[in-house]
Amino acid sequence: MLEKLKQEVLEANLLLPKYNLVTFTWGNVSAIDRESGLMVIKPSGVPYEEMTAEDMVVVELATGKTAEGKWKPSSDTPTHLELYRSFSAIGGVVHTHSRWATSFAQAGAGIQPMGTTQGDYFYGEIPCTRAMTPEEIHGEYEKETGKVIIETFNNIDPMTIPAVLVKSHGPFTWGKDAHEAVHNSVVLEEVAFMNYHAITIAPTAGRMQQELLDKHYLRKHGANAYYGQG
Amino acid sequence: MLEKLKQEVLEANLLLPKYNLVTFTWGNVSAIDRESGLMVIKPSGVPYEEMTAEDMVVVELATGKTAEGKWKPSSDTPTHLELYRSFSAIGGVVHTHSRWATSFAQAGAGIQPMGTTQGDYFYGEIPCTRAMTPEEIHGEYEKETGKVIIETFNNIDPMTIPAVLVKSHGPFTWGKDAHEAVHNSVVLEEVAFMNYHAITIAPTAGRMQQELLDKHYLRKHGANAYYGQG
Amino acid sequence: MLEKLKQEVLEANLLLPKYNLVTFTWGNVSAIDRESGLMVIKPSGVPYEEMTAEDMVVVELATGKTAEGKWKPSSDTPTHLELYRSFSAIGGVVHTHSRWATSFAQAGAGIQPMGTTQGDYFYGEIPCTRAMTPEEIHGEYEKETGKVIIETFNNIDPMTIPAVLVKSHGPFTWGKDAHEAVHNSVVLEEVAFMNYHAITIAPTAGRMQQELLDKHYLRKHGANAYYGQG
Amino acid sequence: MLEKLKQEVLEANLLLPKYNLVTFTWGNVSAIDRESGLMVIKPSGVPYEEMTAEDMVVVELATGKTAEGKWKPSSDTPTHLELYRSFSAIGGVVHTHSRWATSFAQAGAGIQPMGTTQGDYFYGEIPCTRAMTPEEIHGEYEKETGKVIIETFNNIDPMTIPAVLVKSHGPFTWGKDAHEAVHNSVVLEEVAFMNYHAITIAPTAGRMQQELLDKHYLRKHGANAYYGQG
Repeated sequence: MLEKLKQEVLEANLLLPKYNLVTFTWGNVSAIDRESGLMVIKPSGVPYEEMTAEDMVVVELATGKTAEGKWKPSSDTPTHLELYRSFSAIGGVVHTHSRWATSFAQAGAGIQPMGTTQGDYFYGEIPCTRAMTPEEIHGEYEKETGKVIIETFNNIDPMTIPAVLVKSHGPFTWGKDAHEAVHNSVVLEEVAFMNYHAITIAPTAGRMQQELLDKHYLRKHGANAYYGQG
Repeated sequence: MLEKLKQEVLEANLLLPKYNLVTFTWGNVSAIDRESGLMVIKPSGVPYEEMTAEDMVVVELATGKTAEGKWKPSSDTPTHLELYRSFSAIGGVVHTHSRWATSFAQAGAGIQPMGTTQGDYFYGEIPCTRAMTPEEIHGEYEKETGKVIIETFNNIDPMTIPAVLVKSHGPFTWGKDAHEAVHNSVVLEEVAFMNYHAITIAPTAGRMQQELLDKHYLRKHGANAYYGQG
Repeated sequence: MLEKLKQEVLEANLLLPKYNLVTFTWGNVSAIDRESGLMVIKPSGVPYEEMTAEDMVVVELATGKTAEGKWKPSSDTPTHLELYRSFSAIGGVVHTHSRWATSFAQAGAGIQPMGTTQGDYFYGEIPCTRAMTPEEIHGEYEKETGKVIIETFNNIDPMTIPAVLVKSHGPFTWGKDAHEAVHNSVVLEEVAFMNYHAITIAPTAGRMQQELLDKHYLRKHGANAYYGQG
Repeated sequence: MLEKLKQEVLEANLLLPKYNLVTFTWGNVSAIDRESGLMVIKPSGVPYEEMTAEDMVVVELATGKTAEGKWKPSSDTPTHLELYRSFSAIGGVVHTHSRWATSFAQAGAGIQPMGTTQGDYFYGEIPCTRAMTPEEIHGEYEKETGKVIIETFNNIDPMTIPAVLVKSHGPFTWGKDAHEAVHNSVVLEEVAFMNYHAITIAPTAGRMQQELLDKHYLRKHGANAYYGQG
């Protein structure tokens, strides 16, 4: 069942420790097969060193029920599902507690665009969600986490800002597939590092020029892109 | 004598350099066999690269005397013993001078709960002890270090906050066994890193919501835990 | 065609990940053969792990046209060409988004000379360019990036300050050949790290003494140099 | 000639890149044979990867002249010699531009004792020298660098504070032999890291208690030491 996608999700999960984005089992990657309406995700609490493709869990997008798998899926599964339901263009989702991005999440601060490193991947600020209400936390917490992310992107195309910081928690990123979602997690960590130090050096520097952000984002993305070999 | 426990204590000690928690010999791990009243601990000043299980030292919990061992036990032995005597649920103790946690200890500052990374392991602030008095320092210093930790946990269940910062010194962590105590040392270092940067970005951000802390701590710990495969 | 130079440029590009100066493909090195008027540069968007000397692209200095190569040259090619045209003594150019230097670029701040580490390689401040105008950004952007660097060096000999920070973007460095340009990228990252922490510790410390800067720069460079085995 | 000491000095030099204390060739270690009045030191500008014991240079303590060696000695040789002449108990000297210690040197700030990590090795503040005068810089600069260090230790026993920060330059450390001098360089870098973050968290925290400093320094050093297996 979805053997190729399981392999992709396994490999994407193994990139998290490779890129130094996770400690212990603190991260998970999923991908979706839109045709069958099935999501493949990392199991809960299984160490990266021991995981195989057969450990991946298959979950139904519509119901959230496990379709196949010997383990319980990641406890963040309902958050992933919400994102796939609302963000129809995404094919992969990553959650980590990566150090620099999580520091911003704990501060409750978005990551302003201050340089072209961010502009090459993110068309504006990487937002931080509002605090969740006690009702949301006491209710279906992981599902509500997805809903507060979606609310944050009410006026943002999630494909142009493929990351969010959940307040007092940590980042989620996404992409057209699991690999791109991990790629965006790496970029997020880099821009969080740079943004932290830039605002310490120059607290009043503010955002980069909009023209420069447009230039860098649009030379890599969209109809007139000319970056790379494409 | 306690061959299995010696092996566990050796392996736990070797995790300290693996996780980049120690420089030279600046750290030690112990574990206790409650039934026999014997503690196994790293010898003093022996390099990690050369240690074997047979180098571990066995010490009597009641008297502090060496029961077996060719080396002197770690000079922090009386601190470990005090913790085992007062914290009856713990099975392993770690002391390091890990960089981020020690920076907070030197600042005399506890680590506030600002995010779910901390909340997944620590049910509140990781406290910093008061300064020790000249009498305590001039007296049985290492034993008094244990006593000031215990005083700090007067109103805290040590199993819910398995770490402390000793002022102007560094961290101690503990757990149900030596391996879990090391695990908590790694987590402590991560949350110290995140807390440092979060308070620099947003000095007035303050603690995370109590509801969110409850949610994350209690979904992993206690009667209603649902995280992992358990 | 220029096989030796292609090999040098390949090796210089491979030093970027070795020295931890790049993430993914975010960097490029070029070198020039002044006699033939040909520049050799990394292709655009090709991963470092897969590059061979034959992947390097040969570009005409005068026209910017590709003289040989199966790939498109780096999108930063027009910036490299501008630097070679105006800075007649340079033989190699590097562009990266290295973390510490880029943090200063995002802050719009030059790196003041505060210590002999900088003075051994840079005879003064490493400047940050002005912001580019909307016209420059909307026009031949990559070429204009080169022009704004050249404008910044209006009164500076680029061989005495072999690096610049492009505002809201990142560093360019250069040298007598590709290898020296990479060497200067490594030094830039070190001095950016040191400068960041020095100004945080002592915001009013200011520049080092001019005599000390003279001494260190001139004992390694110029007619009276006595450092090394030369 | 002094084959054993050359080997020791080689090995101590090779520890510098191992402990991540140097970039390129930015560091040097020496040791002295007091009986013969000869110092062995790293050659100037030779890469660590290629050095052998035979590359070490032997210099006369009294005259500063090369007694044996195919290379020029490190350009910092006159500084090393001054330290050996005035600090009669030392047997090894290290100079690096290690990142954290150099950041303090650039800030012109000493490293206050704020924790027992420092107290275990340094009996007080690690001082920063005054700025050198133009006359000192224009004169025998490297020798004068040694003199300003010695002036800084006018009222300090250099064996109790085996490190100094040369203002706007970087650290020198020493010890009873080359290996101990390198060990102290590693410790210096750790305490500089911790001190930086502690003063950022708590700018007014100030020095640790004198009693605690006494306790930690004296339990490892001097007549009543009880730390380790000694």
